[in-house]
Amino acid sequence: MKTSANDSLLARALARPETEERLARQILDAALEQFTTFGLRRSSVDDVAKRAGVSRVTVYRRFRNKDGLVEACLLREVSRFFRELDDTVAALPTMQDRIVEGFVVALRHTRAHPLFGGLLRLEPEVVLPYLTVQGGPALVVTTDYLTSHLRRARHTEGRSDSDPRPVAELMVRVAVSFLLNPAGCIELDDEEQARVFARRYLAPLLDV
Amino acid sequence: MKTSANDSLLARALARPETEERLARQILDAALEQFTTFGLRRSSVDDVAKRAGVSRVTVYRRFRNKDGLVEACLLREVSRFFRELDDTVAALPTMQDRIVEGFVVALRHTRAHPLFGGLLRLEPEVVLPYLTVQGGPALVVTTDYLTSHLRRARHTEGRSDSDPRPVAELMVRVAVSFLLNPAGCIELDDEEQARVFARRYLAPLLDV
Repeated sequence: MKTSANDSLLARALARPETEERLARQILDAALEQFTTFGLRRSSVDDVAKRAGVSRVTVYRRFRNKDGLVEACLLREVSRFFRELDDTVAALPTMQDRIVEGFVVALRHTRAHPLFGGLLRLEPEVVLPYLTVQGGPALVVTTDYLTSHLRRARHTEGRSDSDPRPVAELMVRVAVSFLLNPAGCIELDDEEQARVFARRYLAPLLDV
Repeated sequence: MKTSANDSLLARALARPETEERLARQILDAALEQFTTFGLRRSSVDDVAKRAGVSRVTVYRRFRNKDGLVEACLLREVSRFFRELDDTVAALPTMQDRIVEGFVVALRHTRAHPLFGGLLRLEPEVVLPYLTVQGGPALVVTTDYLTSHLRRARHTEGRSDSDPRPVAELMVRVAVSFLLNPAGCIELDDEEQARVFARRYLAPLLDV
């Protein structure tokens, strides 16, 4: 009996990381659905718990509060975004090409994404600060991602070894600007326009 | 008598544009003071009228409503901003130099200006939409301004006669991005940093 009880404890302990992961995923899936359907302001932890089919305590224990839940949601979507970017550009031969296609995909993905472009349309007053006056963290994470790509490319393509971080930040700023305000004279509505723009004005920044 | 009455009518008619202009200026001065001290949300046409020492009707007759007043205030400050930019760069020998110093002055002026940087700090939720999702008009006006400078310079400096508008818009977008979100890794806190950044990353855009 004792051995069997221990076995069962062990089994649960071993199973736990997986259950934990599944539960967190289930909650985040529900949160994403809730936030993108009703907006951040009108969504509570209760709503998310109900939608996920778990208790409020289960949510609070994992995500602290609503802000923690929003943050975790955002982080997960940002990593997915980076993965999609990586997948799109991985096979392209030069950093120039990767910048051009990366810009096209970044615009397409963020505009169409329910949590980025979607909430920007649904609740601009809530979302805008996180992309502007309080946008430091988002800017840094995205710049870090692009910087590491640029750095690797400089090695393999034998470019100058000056710090690629300012160029990366500049490119991220330009992309964010088009997400926030598409209404200038530069039309990037179709992807070919975005491609031409990036090749002409962003790619040359790699060599300054 | 009749002639004298006519003379007096004529005199008033002739004097009118000046009085009108003085009155409009007086109201806009009061509006600027009111908006930048108390924010847009908590300011009414009444507040502005009181501060200007005129009746509400006098304000309404000239500026339609509060939105019209805000717009007129903004327009006036934007023209002042362009004039300051012009004065700063007029004597500089090349367009490259004018871009660099223009960028430095643009950052300094907008950050310090009570209506731009000031309200962005005081009431970000009110101001942000006008600089982002509803920022089309502001972007177009500023891009127009810079485009006409670039076009003139292309003539006098004999550069390529391709349309300078996309470059102008790109530069405006970068400057707005730094106004909205100064918290990246590119530090432009002191003017020498801003100058180095503009010379290295913005000026080369003139030749792409």
